[in-house]
Amino acid sequence: MLLCIPFSIYYGEDWMTFVYSSGITLFVGISCWAIGQTEKNKELKKRDGYLVVTLGWFMMAFFGTLPYFFSGSIDFFTDAFFETMSGFTTTGASILTDVEGMQKGILFWRSLTQWVGGMGIIVLTVAILPILGIGGMQLFVAEAPGISPEKLKPRIKDTAKRLWLIYLGLTILEMVLLMFGGMSFFDAINHSLTTMATGGFSTKHNSIAFFDSAYIQYVITFFMFLAGTSFTITYFGIKGKFKKLWENEEFRVYLVITSLLSICIGVTIYLLGGTDVELSFRQALFQTVSILTTTGYVSADYTQWMPFLTMVFFTLMFIGGSSGSTAGGVKIVRHIILFKNSFLEMKRQLHPSAVIPVRLNHKAINRDITFHVLAFMMIYFLIFALGSIAIALTGVDVMTAIGASATSLGNIGPGLGSVGPVNNFAQMPDASKWILSFLMLLGRLELFTVLMLFTPYFWKRA
Amino acid sequence: MLLCIPFSIYYGEDWMTFVYSSGITLFVGISCWAIGQTEKNKELKKRDGYLVVTLGWFMMAFFGTLPYFFSGSIDFFTDAFFETMSGFTTTGASILTDVEGMQKGILFWRSLTQWVGGMGIIVLTVAILPILGIGGMQLFVAEAPGISPEKLKPRIKDTAKRLWLIYLGLTILEMVLLMFGGMSFFDAINHSLTTMATGGFSTKHNSIAFFDSAYIQYVITFFMFLAGTSFTITYFGIKGKFKKLWENEEFRVYLVITSLLSICIGVTIYLLGGTDVELSFRQALFQTVSILTTTGYVSADYTQWMPFLTMVFFTLMFIGGSSGSTAGGVKIVRHIILFKNSFLEMKRQLHPSAVIPVRLNHKAINRDITFHVLAFMMIYFLIFALGSIAIALTGVDVMTAIGASATSLGNIGPGLGSVGPVNNFAQMPDASKWILSFLMLLGRLELFTVLMLFTPYFWKRA
Repeated sequence: MLLCIPFSIYYGEDWMTFVYSSGITLFVGISCWAIGQTEKNKELKKRDGYLVVTLGWFMMAFFGTLPYFFSGSIDFFTDAFFETMSGFTTTGASILTDVEGMQKGILFWRSLTQWVGGMGIIVLTVAILPILGIGGMQLFVAEAPGISPEKLKPRIKDTAKRLWLIYLGLTILEMVLLMFGGMSFFDAINHSLTTMATGGFSTKHNSIAFFDSAYIQYVITFFMFLAGTSFTITYFGIKGKFKKLWENEEFRVYLVITSLLSICIGVTIYLLGGTDVELSFRQALFQTVSILTTTGYVSADYTQWMPFLTMVFFTLMFIGGSSGSTAGGVKIVRHIILFKNSFLEMKRQLHPSAVIPVRLNHKAINRDITFHVLAFMMIYFLIFALGSIAIALTGVDVMTAIGASATSLGNIGPGLGSVGPVNNFAQMPDASKWILSFLMLLGRLELFTVLMLFTPYFWKRA
Repeated sequence: MLLCIPFSIYYGEDWMTFVYSSGITLFVGISCWAIGQTEKNKELKKRDGYLVVTLGWFMMAFFGTLPYFFSGSIDFFTDAFFETMSGFTTTGASILTDVEGMQKGILFWRSLTQWVGGMGIIVLTVAILPILGIGGMQLFVAEAPGISPEKLKPRIKDTAKRLWLIYLGLTILEMVLLMFGGMSFFDAINHSLTTMATGGFSTKHNSIAFFDSAYIQYVITFFMFLAGTSFTITYFGIKGKFKKLWENEEFRVYLVITSLLSICIGVTIYLLGGTDVELSFRQALFQTVSILTTTGYVSADYTQWMPFLTMVFFTLMFIGGSSGSTAGGVKIVRHIILFKNSFLEMKRQLHPSAVIPVRLNHKAINRDITFHVLAFMMIYFLIFALGSIAIALTGVDVMTAIGASATSLGNIGPGLGSVGPVNNFAQMPDASKWILSFLMLLGRLELFTVLMLFTPYFWKRA
């Protein structure tokens, strides 16, 4: 929060907002720490992990609302909580109706929540989820740089630091490149913070459509793509080990999906009455990468293109970026396993007694992992369906409800209907905002971390 | 086809339609049989099973179009094929715009396709799918009356006959009860044929809404519910073994879902401005049972009630009836396994080394079956999504596309948007009709039977 003060001062705004906010947060934090000191057994158990992670994110979203209140930017707690949860979960759904009219310090705080959320996701994926045994992520961790399966624990800190450095480096690089394109320092830093987090908050009401520059839009597309790539892969890329990149099936599929879809959608837009080949392709590429990586920036209202394309983008919401990136959603690697397994199911029926495992990167995957991946995906769709119904129950129409549910659970940002790319969530009923905030948290913490707390198993004494 | 002749004669229509149609079908059938006689090795292998079942259903739909042509009732092959496939798969989606203006013989043929389709499904579930190893159905077969695991084969014929007898008996009983309610013989026989098949074709344009009689609507509701119940359960019910009914988890869940939903929806409709408690409840019950059992009769346009309720009915499309009934869709037993497994996934994460199986009817389920059920459901959703996209590609709007895809794959009938409960499929683009026909076949044959034919494994020589 203190990082926002320079911006407040520079733009002549009331910087005490951040002093009060951080003071309160610090006070509560120190109090909690002090209470923790009186506890004798300080060893955290696996079981505690689920609670710590879920409550941690919840607390961030709770105290993150303070600057919005003290500055008078957002009047209602529900709205402020929605906006902050959307920030820390790197979703990017917003209730602000007048973005340009906001204090700059507040806008920076808003972007920062996403960047910090992205940082949290990196450490979560690398260090915490594997310990908690959250399904599927083992796939990623086994390949994390500097981690050998034998010596997992001592190196986790190293790995996290290394990935954070990449995260920070890419953020600065994007900022510089955006400023080269004529973006102001303030807009550049905000957009680079929210790009690398695959967040999608913008300092402009019209999002990236505001910047009518091919250069800026391509730069942002490129960094969105990077942010949706496993940071391990980026690490190998930086080290020059390009063979490793192509050998990674998830990256290969990610690249192929992005290219194929951009071309197909680009051609469709052009045939629909586009006047400019480059513009059609750029918009197709931008929106494909934006939704696929769960960033949620908008360069054009894709729901106005064609019903078929709306459907394609809606489907993209369920794919998600790569595992080990800051992207949310189901993740590409799970889809690869699903597709391969679906195909192999037929083979298994013809040869019921044969053991036919799914192979990823030429290695047979443990049947347990495949099982967990399928279970994860089914639960994901289940929660999407229940979420949609719950939101529809608050009185919004069907399209809006399913769009809002999918985009929140996938941590994307824009949905369909009245929460489409050019609208926002301000007019949604209060009850739905709480449901959506919960869906964001669920999606961001890979479902199980949060759902675990609602099972009797968790609360039963070991 | 010959069964339709009495109706044609009675109503003074051209009964030669059915003579020609059955003549051609018989001729082709005998020719095929004769060619088959020249083959030395007549033993059918498991592999042949998939092809025989898929081609069998396809051929039925193909030759089933003949009466529509010879009578001049349907002009285009696409439309006739769609209508016949919708019949034999017990879907009930229709392209007829003037149902009351059709020849009675043709209407009877249309209803008969569904009844024959339902008969096919019974023998498929009891006898054929278990041999082909199509996932999940083992659960049903292990409990089929008269089947002991040791002597499976010799009794299959017996079991199928017994279930067909129940099917026939219930059809006649419903017909008689409907006539008691003042329905004409012709309407009664048609509706009882399509009820027991969970088909949903009606002799009235307004479907069951035409019959403004509480008695008739309750009778149809009751028989829809029976048709969506496992025929094994019905068999036990007829034998008076009511304890067996309640012990069956799928039946219990089926009963509870139906009751709870009908009450909740009934209350909602009443609060929305219903004038009559009984009518609100009846409509809620009727539509819940109609969609849940994948029958697809319409007593009221449920998409006009409230966005939230549209969502509920759309979700119901993915639940389906009981396994071992004539109902289509995912089936309740798979959802039970999914729910239980999702819940147990959390427990497994807390205790990674423990073996924690899903239990159904107090018995632990083989992990392989659970795995197959999850795979089936994921493939089901995948096909739904791909189907929706493909249909949207033919130029219809998003709501219509997802509604049409879900209702066809689930063998229900009415969808959303312009294929909603009070509309029909006539105005859909031709290409979409072929896609939808394919989805009906896929859904009806439990996906794998058809999909198998598109894998290289199938065509590889053993």
